[in-house]
Amino acid sequence: MSVERVRQLLTRSRYHQWLGLELVGVEPGRVVLRLPYRPQFLADENDSYVHGGVIATVVDVAGGFALITELGRGLPTVDLRVDYLRPAPPGADLTAEGHTVRLGRNLGVADVTVSAAGANGGKPVAVGRAVYYTAQR
Amino acid sequence: MSVERVRQLLTRSRYHQWLGLELVGVEPGRVVLRLPYRPQFLADENDSYVHGGVIATVVDVAGGFALITELGRGLPTVDLRVDYLRPAPPGADLTAEGHTVRLGRNLGVADVTVSAAGANGGKPVAVGRAVYYTAQR
Amino acid sequence: MSVERVRQLLTRSRYHQWLGLELVGVEPGRVVLRLPYRPQFLADENDSYVHGGVIATVVDVAGGFALITELGRGLPTVDLRVDYLRPAPPGADLTAEGHTVRLGRNLGVADVTVSAAGANGGKPVAVGRAVYYTAQR
Amino acid sequence: MSVERVRQLLTRSRYHQWLGLELVGVEPGRVVLRLPYRPQFLADENDSYVHGGVIATVVDVAGGFALITELGRGLPTVDLRVDYLRPAPPGADLTAEGHTVRLGRNLGVADVTVSAAGANGGKPVAVGRAVYYTAQR
Repeated sequence: MSVERVRQLLTRSRYHQWLGLELVGVEPGRVVLRLPYRPQFLADENDSYVHGGVIATVVDVAGGFALITELGRGLPTVDLRVDYLRPAPPGADLTAEGHTVRLGRNLGVADVTVSAAGANGGKPVAVGRAVYYTAQR
Repeated sequence: MSVERVRQLLTRSRYHQWLGLELVGVEPGRVVLRLPYRPQFLADENDSYVHGGVIATVVDVAGGFALITELGRGLPTVDLRVDYLRPAPPGADLTAEGHTVRLGRNLGVADVTVSAAGANGGKPVAVGRAVYYTAQR
Repeated sequence: MSVERVRQLLTRSRYHQWLGLELVGVEPGRVVLRLPYRPQFLADENDSYVHGGVIATVVDVAGGFALITELGRGLPTVDLRVDYLRPAPPGADLTAEGHTVRLGRNLGVADVTVSAAGANGGKPVAVGRAVYYTAQR
Repeated sequence: MSVERVRQLLTRSRYHQWLGLELVGVEPGRVVLRLPYRPQFLADENDSYVHGGVIATVVDVAGGFALITELGRGLPTVDLRVDYLRPAPPGADLTAEGHTVRLGRNLGVADVTVSAAGANGGKPVAVGRAVYYTAQR
């Protein structure tokens, strides 16, 4: 699958457009996405950290696109788990690396690590794991 | 905790403002939120369903606010699981009902059910469960 | 599906035999299992609570058997989440109630609540949710 | 923390004794456990694969012991997720590698990979992730 087709699938989604998701890297079974910071992503009344829903979203997308690099088409998410490890501070762009754990005929599993640029000494802000339905419908 | 304070915590978040989250119901240990439909929520290049990241976000928020009704302050999410059951179609407002499963001194657990108005015969589009850190920091 | 066939599927498993799992109730989309206490189930060097692996096991089984009541055959587990709410004390029999959340052509989701008899004022020791592969292989 | 103390904590648990769990390797933030095969571990009436509850148990234990190598004492599990990737066949010893993802003052997160000796070309049978309560109680 070409990088251009992966980028097309990523950027034609209206939700990805609003968020501003960018494709940074792609190889078979692996993607790196960037989400440039926007103040609208902030979670609480003190504007002190990025919303967990933003982070869950990049987990969902980066995991799905890891499998998309191998399958060449979009995939519905079956379920998703996110573990929040550290806060993502205001101002920090997010980077999400997703890779395939298993690609089966019916189901695929992917792992994702999310980091916030310049924060936490490079340690991740979250890790996630998700299952996708890979069979043709 | 007053309904007004719950609404204030919900609507002062910039991310909630952008999404357009509304407080529909609140009682101790339980909230109902509504997310009016926006085309920007759509997931795929065919605009055929609402993005899983939107749904994960309302799970995170509705679970947290179920505990907030009992604790009176915002809470960081420890982890989150979402099971996607059926697609949320274009045009459908989402409703998320969250309730406390356990409120402990250090950790709280909440369950959330997400439905899409007028879709799936009222059956939920997703269920979620999340853990929050409840101790004062 | 007859109660006798559900019981047969439950009790022919060697692991269920060793654990001593019993079928207490069954109706379409719902089972109740009992796991009579054994000292071998204790987790720590002080023998102070039942092992989380025992509880994860009854979650897996009760969720799967909720779907089995509707499908009439065994099902592989896709993934499993357990939230531990309170310790199960030594001496307490466990009861696990499992019910179907969604039964699809390819995947099914079930919820499970685990209680320990005579402990925690009847409040559950754990809740779990699991996904199973329901298509014929 | 000494290897002997880790082994002691592992082997004094009655449930670990029955299962036959062995400590194969230990370093700070990482353990390798082995579970020698027993026919009692089999799941279904055809004796065709190892029970998911056995695998969930080794996930729980290997994740907890990864943190125990750093903290020197036992830890309660907060929650647990297991993704089953491939069946563990009859006869295969299981190996579980657990390592710390994050060790915090209140909570710790660990990842676990479970393999079945001689099966699946060395590919894992399951991956798991769990959260533990790390504060002194």
